Amino acid sequence: MANILLPVLTFLLLSGLGFAVREASWQQGACQIRNINAQEPSQSIQAEGGVTEFWDYQNQQFQCAGVSIRRHRIQPKGLLLPLYHNAPVLVYAVKGKGIFGVVNSGCPETFESSQQFGRSEEERSQSFKDKHQKIEQFRQGEIVAVPAGAAHWVYNNGDQELVLVVFHDNGNNANQLDQNPRSFFLAGNPESGQSEEQYKGSSRVFRGFEVQTLSEAFQIDEEAARKLQGQQDERGHIVTVERGFRVISPPEEYGRREGEEERYSGGRNGLEETSICSAKIKENLDKPSRADVYNPRAGRYTTVNSLTLPILSFLKLSAARGVLYKNGIMAPHWYLNAHSVIYVTHGESRMQIVNHRGQAVFDGLVREGQVIVVPQNFAAVKLAGEQGCEWVAFNTNGNAMINTLSGRTSAIRGLPADVIANAYQISREEAVRLKSSRQETMIFSGRSRSERGRAASA
Amino acid sequence: MANILLPVLTFLLLSGLGFAVREASWQQGACQIRNINAQEPSQSIQAEGGVTEFWDYQNQQFQCAGVSIRRHRIQPKGLLLPLYHNAPVLVYAVKGKGIFGVVNSGCPETFESSQQFGRSEEERSQSFKDKHQKIEQFRQGEIVAVPAGAAHWVYNNGDQELVLVVFHDNGNNANQLDQNPRSFFLAGNPESGQSEEQYKGSSRVFRGFEVQTLSEAFQIDEEAARKLQGQQDERGHIVTVERGFRVISPPEEYGRREGEEERYSGGRNGLEETSICSAKIKENLDKPSRADVYNPRAGRYTTVNSLTLPILSFLKLSAARGVLYKNGIMAPHWYLNAHSVIYVTHGESRMQIVNHRGQAVFDGLVREGQVIVVPQNFAAVKLAGEQGCEWVAFNTNGNAMINTLSGRTSAIRGLPADVIANAYQISREEAVRLKSSRQETMIFSGRSRSERGRAASA
Amino acid sequence: MANILLPVLTFLLLSGLGFAVREASWQQGACQIRNINAQEPSQSIQAEGGVTEFWDYQNQQFQCAGVSIRRHRIQPKGLLLPLYHNAPVLVYAVKGKGIFGVVNSGCPETFESSQQFGRSEEERSQSFKDKHQKIEQFRQGEIVAVPAGAAHWVYNNGDQELVLVVFHDNGNNANQLDQNPRSFFLAGNPESGQSEEQYKGSSRVFRGFEVQTLSEAFQIDEEAARKLQGQQDERGHIVTVERGFRVISPPEEYGRREGEEERYSGGRNGLEETSICSAKIKENLDKPSRADVYNPRAGRYTTVNSLTLPILSFLKLSAARGVLYKNGIMAPHWYLNAHSVIYVTHGESRMQIVNHRGQAVFDGLVREGQVIVVPQNFAAVKLAGEQGCEWVAFNTNGNAMINTLSGRTSAIRGLPADVIANAYQISREEAVRLKSSRQETMIFSGRSRSERGRAASA
Repeated sequence: MANILLPVLTFLLLSGLGFAVREASWQQGACQIRNINAQEPSQSIQAEGGVTEFWDYQNQQFQCAGVSIRRHRIQPKGLLLPLYHNAPVLVYAVKGKGIFGVVNSGCPETFESSQQFGRSEEERSQSFKDKHQKIEQFRQGEIVAVPAGAAHWVYNNGDQELVLVVFHDNGNNANQLDQNPRSFFLAGNPESGQSEEQYKGSSRVFRGFEVQTLSEAFQIDEEAARKLQGQQDERGHIVTVERGFRVISPPEEYGRREGEEERYSGGRNGLEETSICSAKIKENLDKPSRADVYNPRAGRYTTVNSLTLPILSFLKLSAARGVLYKNGIMAPHWYLNAHSVIYVTHGESRMQIVNHRGQAVFDGLVREGQVIVVPQNFAAVKLAGEQGCEWVAFNTNGNAMINTLSGRTSAIRGLPADVIANAYQISREEAVRLKSSRQETMIFSGRSRSERGRAASA
Repeated sequence: MANILLPVLTFLLLSGLGFAVREASWQQGACQIRNINAQEPSQSIQAEGGVTEFWDYQNQQFQCAGVSIRRHRIQPKGLLLPLYHNAPVLVYAVKGKGIFGVVNSGCPETFESSQQFGRSEEERSQSFKDKHQKIEQFRQGEIVAVPAGAAHWVYNNGDQELVLVVFHDNGNNANQLDQNPRSFFLAGNPESGQSEEQYKGSSRVFRGFEVQTLSEAFQIDEEAARKLQGQQDERGHIVTVERGFRVISPPEEYGRREGEEERYSGGRNGLEETSICSAKIKENLDKPSRADVYNPRAGRYTTVNSLTLPILSFLKLSAARGVLYKNGIMAPHWYLNAHSVIYVTHGESRMQIVNHRGQAVFDGLVREGQVIVVPQNFAAVKLAGEQGCEWVAFNTNGNAMINTLSGRTSAIRGLPADVIANAYQISREEAVRLKSSRQETMIFSGRSRSERGRAASA
Repeated sequence: MANILLPVLTFLLLSGLGFAVREASWQQGACQIRNINAQEPSQSIQAEGGVTEFWDYQNQQFQCAGVSIRRHRIQPKGLLLPLYHNAPVLVYAVKGKGIFGVVNSGCPETFESSQQFGRSEEERSQSFKDKHQKIEQFRQGEIVAVPAGAAHWVYNNGDQELVLVVFHDNGNNANQLDQNPRSFFLAGNPESGQSEEQYKGSSRVFRGFEVQTLSEAFQIDEEAARKLQGQQDERGHIVTVERGFRVISPPEEYGRREGEEERYSGGRNGLEETSICSAKIKENLDKPSRADVYNPRAGRYTTVNSLTLPILSFLKLSAARGVLYKNGIMAPHWYLNAHSVIYVTHGESRMQIVNHRGQAVFDGLVREGQVIVVPQNFAAVKLAGEQGCEWVAFNTNGNAMINTLSGRTSAIRGLPADVIANAYQISREEAVRLKSSRQETMIFSGRSRSERGRAASA
């Protein structure tokens, strides 16, 4: 639970992991946020094997937070071609399953097709030989972290659409240029699709090099170099794999034993086993058993941060998954050290977001498929509707810290009764009641719609 | 002493505490500081139990440094209601005494009224029961560090005015929005007071939520929820506590034994004891025995930084207290890695501040109650007047490093005599004399006014 | 080798050295770099003992990267007078040899003239006595790192011109003001030279103080104080040392034994031996034996970063030296976490630099003495001409990480063959060939000019 973890987190922070990861990046007065809206994608770009939808990154709430959001819908057999970004990204799988690969120059190719134990020499010589870097099975409810500048690709090996929500932290210190989202394609030509600001006119990096240069750099003939540029390629940035897609992967049905691929690798030493090459980049946010806060009557809350997924201390990002049952409430709260960008994956929630003037900058419903930004320090509350509400929150800090206003671990509870009594002009007894009335932690059971009456209908 | 500590500091910095904590945040050319002025508060906001005075944060020197300053004057029995800020703050007590509380969601309530040892069961059941988070006795000469987003309150339990100078580091990386100072009130409605830019139109966060939402979140009736909003409350952000103010606190006269509250707490483990929940947040800057530099003829200089108050490595701030006796001098110096914001607590000082063009951007008197910013790398000197001068300096780095131009540990002394001789077209002997003439360290004894003659009268 | 070191680097980064060192510092849309040009100095300022040439820091490529470049040409017996900057700098010696001194307030004067072993009492009493901080012999091919705010000086003790290229990282977090380069002179008056934006109207810091103040601060008479200000000094910022220049230095011919000056120092303890006072600030980038990548047919590549020169973890900078023989190629690559600023020291190279739209923002020759910026994530390739090409690259990260597109450790090699086959519409066999054809690492042997044909003549 975020609240309860706070002391532990902070201990580590004081040990040097670093608290402050970014800074105000807007000029004086430029972020007088008066209104925040739940947003849907404003543009999309179609490709052969799927579609990418973009939230308008020039919208003020995204600009002020220095973030951008996009969503890939990859069809079965669709392959999102290798690309890298100018910012660290978090990728959450809303639906479906796939294979995720991140490649880093200098990392060993630890997945080898022909050196698996238990196969005969004969079998090996007959099989198609390849070796490549580690890849990940990736499915609904899982999140993957990708550093700025690291090339990655995704293949939908399931039989339904694979839906990925991708969070870009352009304001992150890892991005030294400006806050515009920039994607570099190693293959694919998104320009072939419909016009979209972020990809508009984009094509693969190889087109910027001369054919002769590529021929020389890869030691291939110019015919082959021309294929790298793919001038006639109209499939876009997500292509459909026609014949079977073969990659080397530990047997999926048994799961991968921890560290298995390391044992198969000859060229790595102790240091490297703790390097980015073998860093864990994936975590399941959806398993109820991983919940940090669990309330059988109200829902659950699960976080992933630099303590549970160490690469996040490097990316300065964290995430959380919230599940509210029918009429559940997430306590009024604020993040001390992060913006929180919320994507609703199921149901809907009434949210109120309050600025430093005590004004609601948002009071409305956030529905499945919508995104809303809760700026750092702004107070927010969520009230789930009749269908409950599920969401993923992307936070701009490796250890986002939350303060709640009510409930068992709230800040209000830490105040002396006499401070409360004098603050709200109530008796000491009322103050003690205010502190202790709500015994649950962060995720509360709520009233039904009819009980809420006027409030819910507003 | 700052100079002598430099090697130690740096060792730790190299060990990963992090040197660079912020960056240039103004556009090209926007900080061509040509003039700096000693500033007094430009606005104030009156409340029932005191007044808050604000320096104009839009003044260029504050803008360029990314900082803001305010001063609370809290009357006896006055309670500054709980609030939090978008930036880490340092609070220095110029006068008076009080109780300071910082609350963090998830921290245990370690101050309990009814479970103290040595009391009978009967006594416990009769006493008013409460428990809350750790609180601090706080008095003149002490400084308290508060992280961004952490709620805090102050009560004046003395019999004179409690005067607090509050330094906000809005440009700190811990603030991810813009550089405007933002204060979030959990209670109190500063708008009821006079108009002031920073608080104008502000009211407590609870007003941004609906009554029904509060009622549900706190599990209280709507009548009680309405009190949280306090629509009729006209007392402002500092209220007067009419009846006795009761909080749980170790007996003040004996002092608190180190770690005492930890022993009384059941729910904490080893890790948590080093967490933010039990982090030391207070330090005395005024005790002569704590001086880092002490010159019986000239004054003293006392620093607090991430080594003496570890939470400052987290806040990336440090502070210093300077005391110059009559006609004392603080050596010409510059800060390598911090802006220094100076508040004069007593007396006055003539200061000269020099930019990279060798021009004095300030040459004048800084008097008690005034503030001046010395930008990073700018060279400065202080010459105390007949009454001497005392000040507190807030620095925008967890380990502000200072270089002096003259005196025993100065940079000039580190230069070979032949570099000095050739630089200033003097003989080697004169060069050696220049290096060694002033034997004191940073705090020098000076000439009397009459000796200073023209210089002092300028 | 940068590629192969990547896992090691990253391990350390994950251990807390910090990955992200800066952030986007330009407003939305301000860095739509469409064209980059190889630049030569646009201004220069002449002084008695040499000349300083400036690249136009307001040029967009430097602005976007937050860096500036200058070059000192110091004549034999020329002394670059003590100065400090608002940003950390790297100084690379392109030609010649000299003495480099960095002074830090509080560091001990460990070089003493009269306490050397093996000299008689008599000799000592006769010799000119001085003591000063550590100084460095500095020669062609070496690089020196200087923290922001640290005063330093350089003396040409050789018999040819000493040419230094100085890289300022103004966008570094160590600079808390704006991104303008600012140099503070402790001596010398560069204004006496020709007009130049960066030094224009500049004079030594001492001129900003009153004579009386200096007299008092240094405890010298006003006559001597006036010499500190040097109102009549017209020699500029580089002066000529007329008589012999004497500094204390271990015998150059035998080299300095590791840690020698520490043994001679009485006042330092264990901690201080690892402090900034004794930190190593110099590294040789040019020695072939230090190469990280070496290809006897193509050239070599040598890096210096926070692992090889620990002060760089503090400065958040690193550097590399590339040597391409005739027709050698540096693989197409991009930096994940740094801008790279390239200064060609010998020969010339054809470069192509490609943005995220797949457009070449530069395609041309970069010649000896020219500078070009490769922005973070932009893909670049270098093809040396008939004379080969040598350069130094200054990178805005303590551990700049590089990804190559072709060669033995490239990102492309880490991709499964089926991803490549589908990406470029080639067969699996062609994909395997594409991955493995170029067996060299980063530095490739290339075709001769005639073989390059059209490409080379473009």
